Amino acid sequence: MASFITFLTDFGLQDDFVGTCHGVIKRIAPDAQIIDITHGIAPQGVLQGALTLANSLPFTPEGVHLAVVDPGVGGSRRALALRDRAGRIHVGPDNGLLIPATDKFGGIAEAYELTNPAYALESVSRTFHGRDLFAPAAAHLSLGVPLAELGPPIAADALARLELPVPEVGTTRIRASVLGIDRFGNVQLNLDRSHSDEAGIVPGTRVELQVGPERYYAVAARTFADARPGDLILYEDSYRNLSIAINGGHAADMLGTRPGSDVRIQLEPL
Amino acid sequence: MASFITFLTDFGLQDDFVGTCHGVIKRIAPDAQIIDITHGIAPQGVLQGALTLANSLPFTPEGVHLAVVDPGVGGSRRALALRDRAGRIHVGPDNGLLIPATDKFGGIAEAYELTNPAYALESVSRTFHGRDLFAPAAAHLSLGVPLAELGPPIAADALARLELPVPEVGTTRIRASVLGIDRFGNVQLNLDRSHSDEAGIVPGTRVELQVGPERYYAVAARTFADARPGDLILYEDSYRNLSIAINGGHAADMLGTRPGSDVRIQLEPL
Amino acid sequence: MASFITFLTDFGLQDDFVGTCHGVIKRIAPDAQIIDITHGIAPQGVLQGALTLANSLPFTPEGVHLAVVDPGVGGSRRALALRDRAGRIHVGPDNGLLIPATDKFGGIAEAYELTNPAYALESVSRTFHGRDLFAPAAAHLSLGVPLAELGPPIAADALARLELPVPEVGTTRIRASVLGIDRFGNVQLNLDRSHSDEAGIVPGTRVELQVGPERYYAVAARTFADARPGDLILYEDSYRNLSIAINGGHAADMLGTRPGSDVRIQLEPL
Repeated sequence: MASFITFLTDFGLQDDFVGTCHGVIKRIAPDAQIIDITHGIAPQGVLQGALTLANSLPFTPEGVHLAVVDPGVGGSRRALALRDRAGRIHVGPDNGLLIPATDKFGGIAEAYELTNPAYALESVSRTFHGRDLFAPAAAHLSLGVPLAELGPPIAADALARLELPVPEVGTTRIRASVLGIDRFGNVQLNLDRSHSDEAGIVPGTRVELQVGPERYYAVAARTFADARPGDLILYEDSYRNLSIAINGGHAADMLGTRPGSDVRIQLEPL
Repeated sequence: MASFITFLTDFGLQDDFVGTCHGVIKRIAPDAQIIDITHGIAPQGVLQGALTLANSLPFTPEGVHLAVVDPGVGGSRRALALRDRAGRIHVGPDNGLLIPATDKFGGIAEAYELTNPAYALESVSRTFHGRDLFAPAAAHLSLGVPLAELGPPIAADALARLELPVPEVGTTRIRASVLGIDRFGNVQLNLDRSHSDEAGIVPGTRVELQVGPERYYAVAARTFADARPGDLILYEDSYRNLSIAINGGHAADMLGTRPGSDVRIQLEPL
Repeated sequence: MASFITFLTDFGLQDDFVGTCHGVIKRIAPDAQIIDITHGIAPQGVLQGALTLANSLPFTPEGVHLAVVDPGVGGSRRALALRDRAGRIHVGPDNGLLIPATDKFGGIAEAYELTNPAYALESVSRTFHGRDLFAPAAAHLSLGVPLAELGPPIAADALARLELPVPEVGTTRIRASVLGIDRFGNVQLNLDRSHSDEAGIVPGTRVELQVGPERYYAVAARTFADARPGDLILYEDSYRNLSIAINGGHAADMLGTRPGSDVRIQLEPL
């Protein structure tokens, strides 16, 4: 049976970091198939990495899910292997990165700290645990090594968790924040259909967007093709978040938003 | 026997789009080998994607060739599976992207519209058909599902086609346009050896290049090493297009060209 | 048994160069597993490529190590296949790129020039030997073709070698140079622990860095977490080179360094 290891980091592809981790995995588990989710997470973007993992893992085969966005490397943060309630295994640092994805699979069933040196490289550097600690652990786990072999159990409620930004949804106004911006310039908000339903936004609804001091008109739409070129639209993206796009353009550049920016949505009076 | 799926998009590698499509393919066809041709096509660069596919596919193994550069996603453009006369299968949007590559394999033998929901993900979003429609179709086809299972046939002459820019080749002047610029700054023109033969350009021929109001001297050469550092050369590139390079430099930056730019080549009087 | 081909280039991932080489390899050796070390070497950065190879290959499985950073393509530089004393095979241009990695495996046992057209593509272009010459050679070698089949032997001392920048280490001053800058902005120097030991630098030692006319204070530390956010540190990186980092920042941007820049390290009087 094929054994899959998915891999997400903020390492980028300019250096050899990702390739070296592939090498480490293949030395231990030559037949494992590695699926690179992305290595384009912004440097040390733990929240962005966590949300990207949660969005993408449901589309991947069952297996070991390795993720490294790790500003605390070399310090006191723990290294983890988790099993979720659907049986998938997650490996990475204890900084909240892994948690939203495990929630997509029923939550955490078991958690262990990676402390057993038999499942790490012989020499563990202080700055590259992806290579020396996490990749070897993922490889061994993909071969069927029991999680409990890798270190002592940890209570799930002792794990570090991220604070996800919470929107304020009123009857005429929503205060949202930008979760991420994709390569096409589409701006993902911390809103989903429950929020648009609550606010009564349906396709065709016109809204005013406020970003910093600037105001823009946008229309709620099902897809890019429902708007004229150059029009701003508010739409449910493919991960079921509300996002802002411009048909044929780069919405984030136009609006001047970045991850973390505030976006206020003013509903027009009927 | 190994089953290959090649994959080309404008998704970039910053987001999880490519990795998520890999996940979708591997859930359906765990043993398929995916060859990423490139995901660096400029956003919505259908022509660039089409030319890149046509250049690269002859160097890849036979299999299913998945390509997604899809500005019309969610609108009325059709989704396609084609078989070319050499037996290769092509999957992607009906916007002309796939056609130049099929021409390298004798043209289109059969064309089908992807409409059968049994070969798509259960829920098809309006903005990410790469994940929900095209990747699953490619995976099923790689397993041997007949094309006709995926939807109704379409006449080959009913498919959308791209207009390729045509050069004007005179006895003393060529008016060409820039097809693409590679990472090294080399500028690919819509010219091949038939045009340089027609114009009598041979290694050693000196020409004047006109780009916008600026003029530059270049010399026709076989390879970079035939010119002094800093010299502009006109050469037959590895895909048999004429291209402009600077030995040791970035020709596109120096000339200020972009894809679509006009380049006039003035032949010097003998 | 799995057969591995590692692959490093300066091709970038924007174009189809890497994907096309994968295609060429898979047509010849469909079951070979390709590990992409990186394709992000700066264009024509032979020294950077050589150092990256030497750093990463010890972490990869045994196999064929294909590397192409090749400013001399199409000229008179030779094409090589080498076997190192640990049995690993290296394929690439004769410009010094392969040598530092072979040194990690005991040095060169045998060297051959790639001249046999039976192991290249039928038509070899003048500008893309990665695709036409090196990738096919690597694929055939991964299938067990003897090196001597590919061309005549060359004496190891006839191979081109790179000049590695040598630091000047004094009792109160070190003159180093920047080997590379990674995605996180960390600045790798041509120094290792032997130099810091010689200069008496231990964790906690304060030093002054001089880059161009500017001076900065830094402290020697074991890991990022040992410094306050914003502090410059000098640390032993995961490849055992001395590097400069800023906890939570981009040291190269802050210092204004590039590969090749001079960095002077002034030891403070006790």
